[in-house]
Amino acid sequence: MRQAPKVVAFAGGVGGAKLAHGLAMLLPAGHLTVVVNVGDDFSHYGLHISPDLDTVMYTLAGIANPATGWGLADESWQFLAMLERYGEAPWFRLGDRDLATHILRTHALAQGETLTQITQRFVEQLDISHHILPVTDDRLATVIETVEEGFLNFQHYFVKYRWQPTVIGLNFEGSDRARLTEAVHHALSEADVLVICPSNPLLSIAPILAVQGARQAIEQRRVPCVTVSPLISGKAVKGPTDKLMREMGLLPTTEGIATYYEGLVDVLVIDRDDHHELAPVQARFPDLSIVHTQTLMRTIADRQTLAHRILNYVSEVTL
Amino acid sequence: MRQAPKVVAFAGGVGGAKLAHGLAMLLPAGHLTVVVNVGDDFSHYGLHISPDLDTVMYTLAGIANPATGWGLADESWQFLAMLERYGEAPWFRLGDRDLATHILRTHALAQGETLTQITQRFVEQLDISHHILPVTDDRLATVIETVEEGFLNFQHYFVKYRWQPTVIGLNFEGSDRARLTEAVHHALSEADVLVICPSNPLLSIAPILAVQGARQAIEQRRVPCVTVSPLISGKAVKGPTDKLMREMGLLPTTEGIATYYEGLVDVLVIDRDDHHELAPVQARFPDLSIVHTQTLMRTIADRQTLAHRILNYVSEVTL
Repeated sequence: MRQAPKVVAFAGGVGGAKLAHGLAMLLPAGHLTVVVNVGDDFSHYGLHISPDLDTVMYTLAGIANPATGWGLADESWQFLAMLERYGEAPWFRLGDRDLATHILRTHALAQGETLTQITQRFVEQLDISHHILPVTDDRLATVIETVEEGFLNFQHYFVKYRWQPTVIGLNFEGSDRARLTEAVHHALSEADVLVICPSNPLLSIAPILAVQGARQAIEQRRVPCVTVSPLISGKAVKGPTDKLMREMGLLPTTEGIATYYEGLVDVLVIDRDDHHELAPVQARFPDLSIVHTQTLMRTIADRQTLAHRILNYVSEVTL
Repeated sequence: MRQAPKVVAFAGGVGGAKLAHGLAMLLPAGHLTVVVNVGDDFSHYGLHISPDLDTVMYTLAGIANPATGWGLADESWQFLAMLERYGEAPWFRLGDRDLATHILRTHALAQGETLTQITQRFVEQLDISHHILPVTDDRLATVIETVEEGFLNFQHYFVKYRWQPTVIGLNFEGSDRARLTEAVHHALSEADVLVICPSNPLLSIAPILAVQGARQAIEQRRVPCVTVSPLISGKAVKGPTDKLMREMGLLPTTEGIATYYEGLVDVLVIDRDDHHELAPVQARFPDLSIVHTQTLMRTIADRQTLAHRILNYVSEVTL
């Protein structure tokens, strides 16, 4: 691969967005397409909210809140204060600037634009030189069955109940009818490398794979597919990945991740702190290339370093 | 009238809201019902905006922007800044706090609540001790025919074009089907006094009168109806009243106002600066009581003083 590769990265929220940002900084304009989960999308006060698309978009535009990873930097909360004045107790924090995204998107969708189209307009306006695509323009809704609270919509589980309930089932409503968009098909057909970002496999990547044609497209790939484990020493950097893997019967280890992605990835990147897991997992998955490096992305430079390590590795093995 | 009277006040935006506020401060809780124009309502970025209802609501709640008369005090504009980042050029200023009203209202209407119901909830939450009612829950849209720009929706005429185009026609779309609400009927049946606030007669009061049953209810009143001229020395305190009256073939004078409201009002309050118009107009309209006092409401105290003068006058003549 002498020229810069074309990369399709699959991502959910904060962790995935960080690696996507690293790739975006390294690759020439237009070479990266981030295919984003929309199973978390929901309607709040009548507004269509796409949390993962927003996180990826804000991160690649360099305007994400660096403290939280989601939402906008320098955000203000006057809307929320007034909402409380009206007796509302909003459990989902909508910032004043963030509202522009939700209101424009909701209005565009109501006028018949697709999520893909309105996202493309946002990406252009925010001067992002790569592509960000919802995995589907069809309805897809992650519903979580819990012991304590029964069935919960994703945002209720994640934000309202802070992922504390015990999960016994995951359902991606609409996935039997949801199709990959033409734009995603096109990006996949041109890709030299696929990257599954270190997002939560069960909450962020699974709904992407549940879309009709998605899993098959990755299984039948003719280009290498790399993933980065979202775990370090058996723990998620952020969020419920390890807790949820355990609840869903998967080991929260390198072996668990390798098992989950079997047949879908050629290269598994794990943190150097987990290098002791390399040999036993390698023995069980002889066709999998396992690489260890620093996967924790504390700084912007870390994002770029990890992206660089991935692209270099793929470039070496495919030369 | 020994007890405090029950008052129904008809109002549009800023000027009307000021007198309504004066009445609200004077009257015991629940004695005032402000019936508000909705011909200015419009949809902006998919949000249902009711400018006159908001101005009356914010004014009676004591949270209106004292400089502009509309919008909220201590407003911030982060949403608008982000909207511009997305390449929008919004001509209607939506404040961050103000958005709470529009979003809650739009959501409530989409869920089947009436404008009357959602307005009542707002009024309660904002601790307003009186009633604020849209004149109708049906569609009513003021459309303005102009020489320069053809047909314009109200907000385009008023905000976008700053009421500069020459008006040759006013149309209240939907008025042939729009009905007074039950709540307005009830308030009218209990009223001891009707007040037509010093709002623009052609833009704020005319759409109210155009609603089915409204003009008839006022013409067949059994209680006194008072209006305050929106003109002082032939000029509007704010906005296009005099310009528009001229364009629509009415004199922008006390006589023009008396002509416009003939049959609808028993008492016309004019500014003391216009006392020289009293005798000639009185001669032409012998059944009309004309009172002169200070009608300019610069301060909160001015609002209360004018309201007091009106209620006192009505109380004297009907004792």
